[in-house]
This record gives sequence, structure tokens and C-alpha cells, in this order.
Amino acid sequence: MIILGLDPGLGTTGWGLIRAEGNRLSHLGNGRLKTDPQAALPRRLVHLDAMVAALVADHAPDAAAVEEVFVNANPQSTLKLGQARGVILCAAARSGIDVGEYAARLVKKAVVGVGNADKAQVHAMVTRLLPGVSIDGLDAADALAVAICHAHHAASAQALAPR
Amino acid sequence: MIILGLDPGLGTTGWGLIRAEGNRLSHLGNGRLKTDPQAALPRRLVHLDAMVAALVADHAPDAAAVEEVFVNANPQSTLKLGQARGVILCAAARSGIDVGEYAARLVKKAVVGVGNADKAQVHAMVTRLLPGVSIDGLDAADALAVAICHAHHAASAQALAPR
Repeated sequence: MIILGLDPGLGTTGWGLIRAEGNRLSHLGNGRLKTDPQAALPRRLVHLDAMVAALVADHAPDAAAVEEVFVNANPQSTLKLGQARGVILCAAARSGIDVGEYAARLVKKAVVGVGNADKAQVHAMVTRLLPGVSIDGLDAADALAVAICHAHHAASAQALAPR
Repeated sequence: MIILGLDPGLGTTGWGLIRAEGNRLSHLGNGRLKTDPQAALPRRLVHLDAMVAALVADHAPDAAAVEEVFVNANPQSTLKLGQARGVILCAAARSGIDVGEYAARLVKKAVVGVGNADKAQVHAMVTRLLPGVSIDGLDAADALAVAICHAHHAASAQALAPR
């Protein structure tokens, strides 16, 4: 089972691709999708949509997993992030694959063992779980973490999806 | 010039299509796009994306105009609306047409003449500006209003876009 993890952002979206065979996880790729901050919002969203659609087309994942976003920041930030996240969920789901949504706490618990782990702990644990991986920054580490979380919960992903 | 106005919502998105020839406006269509509240969020977003893309493909508007959303509600509502709005902006812009964004105050000012008009006033004024129109509810009235606002600002739409 190939899983595409996504950590949404309008400026930078992290992505991570893993293969899960039973309890064995292996790394297939990771990186960052960037949109031009100088471009108008609709253009940035079209670019983000195309990049996620290309990842799905190129790697044919069996499922995608997207981190739930933090909504306690200021409303304008929540709106901006929400717009990017909506496009990402839609681009991933359009091909017909299942798209799981996971709260940040659940992702941290699945990867580190505690729900309040910090980003450095997540990065370190992802490196341990995927030997030999070279991670393209913290956003990509978060994306790999949500993919690992989905692998752990794959059997019951539908039941766990918060919506 | 044919303009597609959109009033975003996850459950119900209003749409309105007008033709603007100089100062003359005429009504081409309006309605509501609904997603199934029982479906998972990614599926609802894919459905919304397909419905907006179909409107653009069927009516070949020269531009789209989308109302900016109100962000002072609770953060979960802002996030939900943001996700729908991101998909709508993306679906409209994907075909290459210009997509204008207008604050609610600006729309009301363009249509009613004052920025704090209520929904009933907007509905009444849209009915007056588009003689013979039959409007499919307040969401469609808001969508027609944002299309009318775009017609008024078309020449300077790029400069007025808030982002």
C-alpha cells in the first residue's frame, strides 16, 4: 500500500510518500510544493491543485492522508490555510482514492508516542522509522508523519476520520 | 462580457450569471450548488469542484467573481468555509478566466449603494437591476450581486482585488 501524506499550506505544502507492507514501512519520496507569494490567490490555488494532482498521477498512491489544520491562529490565517487545504483535499480525492484526515495530536501519538511532541521529535522519529531517508525540511517531515499515521490506522481509517 | 458570480459555502454555494454590455446588465441564470452533508469532506469538495467546473464549461463566462467570506465566526466555521472557497476559486480560475474577489461591503455598496445593506435589500435591488429575474434564494441573490459588482469594477478589477 502506497500512502501520500500532505501537510497543507498556501505558501509551502509538505509531501511524503511511503510504502506500507504489513508492519514494514519504506520511504519513496518527500518534498515541498511551493506557490508564488506574488501571484493572485486563485492562481496560487490552481498551481497547488496541479502540483498535488501531478503527485497523485505520477506515484499512483492507494490513499492520501492530510493533517488537520490548527484553527486557533488569527481568522485570516485560518481562512488562508483553509483555502489551501480545501484544494489539497479535493486534488487528492478527485482521482477516487481514499483521503484520511488526522488531527495533529493523533499524528504525533502515532509517530512519537505522545500527542504533544514537538516538530524536532517528529522529525527525529520519522528518520528512525524510515531508515536512510533524507527529509526536505519540517513540512516534509510532518507529511511523512501523517502518512505513517495513516499506515497505522489504515484498517480503521474511515472510522477515525473526524468528518 | 459574461460574468459568473459565486457566493461560497460548503453546504450551499449560490451562483448567478449575467451579461454586461456597457451599462446594460441582463440575467442569464442563477441557482444553488448543494453538497451532501452526509458525505465525507473530501468527497463534498470534489463534488463542489465538479459543479463549478461544469458551470464554467457550460456557460463559458469571461470572468468569475467570488465574495470574500466573513471570518469573525468561530474558527471551525471559518476553516470549513475557507476549504469550500479555496475549491471554488480554484475551479473557476483553472480554465484561465480572471477571478475577482470582492468584500461583502463593496458588493453591497455596488448594488444597493450602502455597505451595510441587509440581505433583503440586496435581493430587492438585484431584482430591480435584472428585470424579470426569478432568484433561487438569498445565496443566488448574493451571487448575482457579486457578479453585478464585478461588472461595475471590471475595468479596474485587478487593481481592486484585495490579494
